Amino acid sequence: MSELTGNLLVAQSGGPTSVVNSSLAGIVSEALNHECIEEIYGGLNGVMGMLNEDFVDLAAESQQTIRGLRHTPGAALGTGRFKLKKQQDYERVLEVFAAHNIRYFMHIGGSEAQESADRIDQLAREHGHDLRVIGVPKTIDNDLVHTDHCPGYGSAIKHIATTVREIACDNRAMGQGEFVSIVEVMGRSSGWLAAGASLAKGKDQPHDPPHLIYLPEVAFSPEKFFEDVRRVLRREKYCLIVVGEGLVDKDGNYISVTSGLADGYGHTTPGGAGDYLGNLIEESLGLKARTTRLGYAQRSAATHASKTDNDEAYLAGQAAVRAAIKGESGRMVTLIRGDTDPYSCETGLAPLADMANGIKELTRDWVHEDGVSMNHQFYKYAHPLIQGEIAVPYANGLPEFVQLRREAVEKRLEVYPVG
Amino acid sequence: MSELTGNLLVAQSGGPTSVVNSSLAGIVSEALNHECIEEIYGGLNGVMGMLNEDFVDLAAESQQTIRGLRHTPGAALGTGRFKLKKQQDYERVLEVFAAHNIRYFMHIGGSEAQESADRIDQLAREHGHDLRVIGVPKTIDNDLVHTDHCPGYGSAIKHIATTVREIACDNRAMGQGEFVSIVEVMGRSSGWLAAGASLAKGKDQPHDPPHLIYLPEVAFSPEKFFEDVRRVLRREKYCLIVVGEGLVDKDGNYISVTSGLADGYGHTTPGGAGDYLGNLIEESLGLKARTTRLGYAQRSAATHASKTDNDEAYLAGQAAVRAAIKGESGRMVTLIRGDTDPYSCETGLAPLADMANGIKELTRDWVHEDGVSMNHQFYKYAHPLIQGEIAVPYANGLPEFVQLRREAVEKRLEVYPVG
Repeated sequence: MSELTGNLLVAQSGGPTSVVNSSLAGIVSEALNHECIEEIYGGLNGVMGMLNEDFVDLAAESQQTIRGLRHTPGAALGTGRFKLKKQQDYERVLEVFAAHNIRYFMHIGGSEAQESADRIDQLAREHGHDLRVIGVPKTIDNDLVHTDHCPGYGSAIKHIATTVREIACDNRAMGQGEFVSIVEVMGRSSGWLAAGASLAKGKDQPHDPPHLIYLPEVAFSPEKFFEDVRRVLRREKYCLIVVGEGLVDKDGNYISVTSGLADGYGHTTPGGAGDYLGNLIEESLGLKARTTRLGYAQRSAATHASKTDNDEAYLAGQAAVRAAIKGESGRMVTLIRGDTDPYSCETGLAPLADMANGIKELTRDWVHEDGVSMNHQFYKYAHPLIQGEIAVPYANGLPEFVQLRREAVEKRLEVYPVG
Repeated sequence: MSELTGNLLVAQSGGPTSVVNSSLAGIVSEALNHECIEEIYGGLNGVMGMLNEDFVDLAAESQQTIRGLRHTPGAALGTGRFKLKKQQDYERVLEVFAAHNIRYFMHIGGSEAQESADRIDQLAREHGHDLRVIGVPKTIDNDLVHTDHCPGYGSAIKHIATTVREIACDNRAMGQGEFVSIVEVMGRSSGWLAAGASLAKGKDQPHDPPHLIYLPEVAFSPEKFFEDVRRVLRREKYCLIVVGEGLVDKDGNYISVTSGLADGYGHTTPGGAGDYLGNLIEESLGLKARTTRLGYAQRSAATHASKTDNDEAYLAGQAAVRAAIKGESGRMVTLIRGDTDPYSCETGLAPLADMANGIKELTRDWVHEDGVSMNHQFYKYAHPLIQGEIAVPYANGLPEFVQLRREAVEKRLEVYPVG
């Protein structure tokens, strides 16, 4: 494959993670190694920046800032939920790419980001615009196919397991045989995050907290729930429950705090599964229950990030640039777990076109037969992903994060009517 | 004052903090320095253990465990909300103390713990039982009088400010002019904790997140709230709100998620102030709003603990033992801030009898005139309390906390019917 000279563009799409900027840093630092990459541009606010020509000069950022990205949560380029759908939007993107001589496009994101990267790649081929498109996986939801796991997931479950372990110390102290505490975690359609809470248990300590985990994969039944809670409270002096926000009943309706309150059981959007369980416990068991909702902290707790995850996010960014330099296009970087013990991981490539087809579900075989805990196979899978800590720099008692200077790249085209 | 020889008892009461075990470690390590203290007992589960003779031998614990207490959240001896009220319960406590030759009693807790310590002290005098009672302050609510601040508060607000700063990175990335995010913090009757979130702002950066702070001290008005949010969204691309769970309306009723839903506006117990604000935003401004509820993490996030706070908690425990050895009784250790800059702090003593009378309110003068931020005086007060980090040991990717062996002390009395 002949050398392709031109500019590189990187964008971040979808919900941030605490390590998505590490992938950005990996891309920038690797791009600097290759002379055929002339300018390194960042597209602002996901695909919006590609339609609006909102580019910033990443090579103009200081080394300190690029290094600081490695421990800074959020998406430093901005992100967004706007989706490229219309054909004319895709044509516009190519027009913008041509105007700025973009020859390398790196899209960091989840399945939607990979899908749009795939369409850009195909359209470039159709138009004969020489472009190399590589996707970099990013999602705390861990649901991309073809990759063993997704950058962002390890740090999210490390935060969840850390917080559950800390809360367990509090709840254990309060426990007199009737103390119930609920931790609600994200995951609208899968239990990957809720399952990760099980890492808070000591190895081979099945009775350690969290005592009960309710996953979207297991249809919720109030009767079974009451039995579960009673069983734990016969054995322990407190009961620590983790619930995924996407919990559903046997008919697939979301369990929501307004279920049965405003408009009867059965909701189409998730909301307040933790409070719903708390209300059930108060009304039916007569016990107090307080819900902690980890919310946005799950995807931004850089102080609880996994070094393994952070390093892999960086590595994935570097690998994307190297693959493009080698002539690859229309591919997403994947993480491939080695067969060895201890854990090892290297990067691979998979077709972008496959990313829109299907999501990786939490393996049902990894759920313990009791339906409220994970078995050893899950532990074996997830445990390596949370290893190692990040030394986030502190100043004045708080973590110090960086922001990009965002030196704007001059626009070259007419204003485009987005939306 | 003549030397008093006998045993020491320490108990922990009320909700745990992430540094309440540091006070316990301070008491144990200091007690070992004094030969007149023969045995070092821990009372289990707050005052319950004093009624039931549930004592453990703290001197039998390993040095490693006592050291590990310094970074272990929760209350290692167990705690509880049971209150000593009946005269016969107090008589029982003295009987138990006499049977075990307890001559030094250290009660770590909030205002209720100090009040019961005071009554035990008075009753001992009346009965001629030579006993020295010293209280050690503990509460994330920061509401004890006579002390500049309370051990536990600094770590709680460091956790809150850290998490708000992390979430802000996420929310900033998502912001396109219409992104609203809410963080609900504890504090049923005061805004000490919500106010602490303001430390997440950079110094002299009033426009930094959190953009709006709603305190129980400032009567909530939906009209003002809408104005506040609109003002922020004109200036910023996102709006990060912090709300104390004890938010009230102009009539003093708690703002609750079920306000106006189940039984009309006006509730006697707090619950879901964050979700209530989120619903208001969705219904009245047509914007999505997601609420993170920090919950129990605020009093257990040892990985976000303040070294200053942790050291002061330890110091307060040591000072309690020293005061008792010197012959003091019926006193609580206080923290006295030096007049110097940089910050310094030493311990003092205040009468236990004063602790039940009044709580220390958040100074209204420290709230900015906009009603939704704190001024420089609050910053000056709170900022030193979050300085420094704790090196919590990690193993297998998660913080390692200790548990006491809890070697039981033999009972000497008939079973007592508690309750």
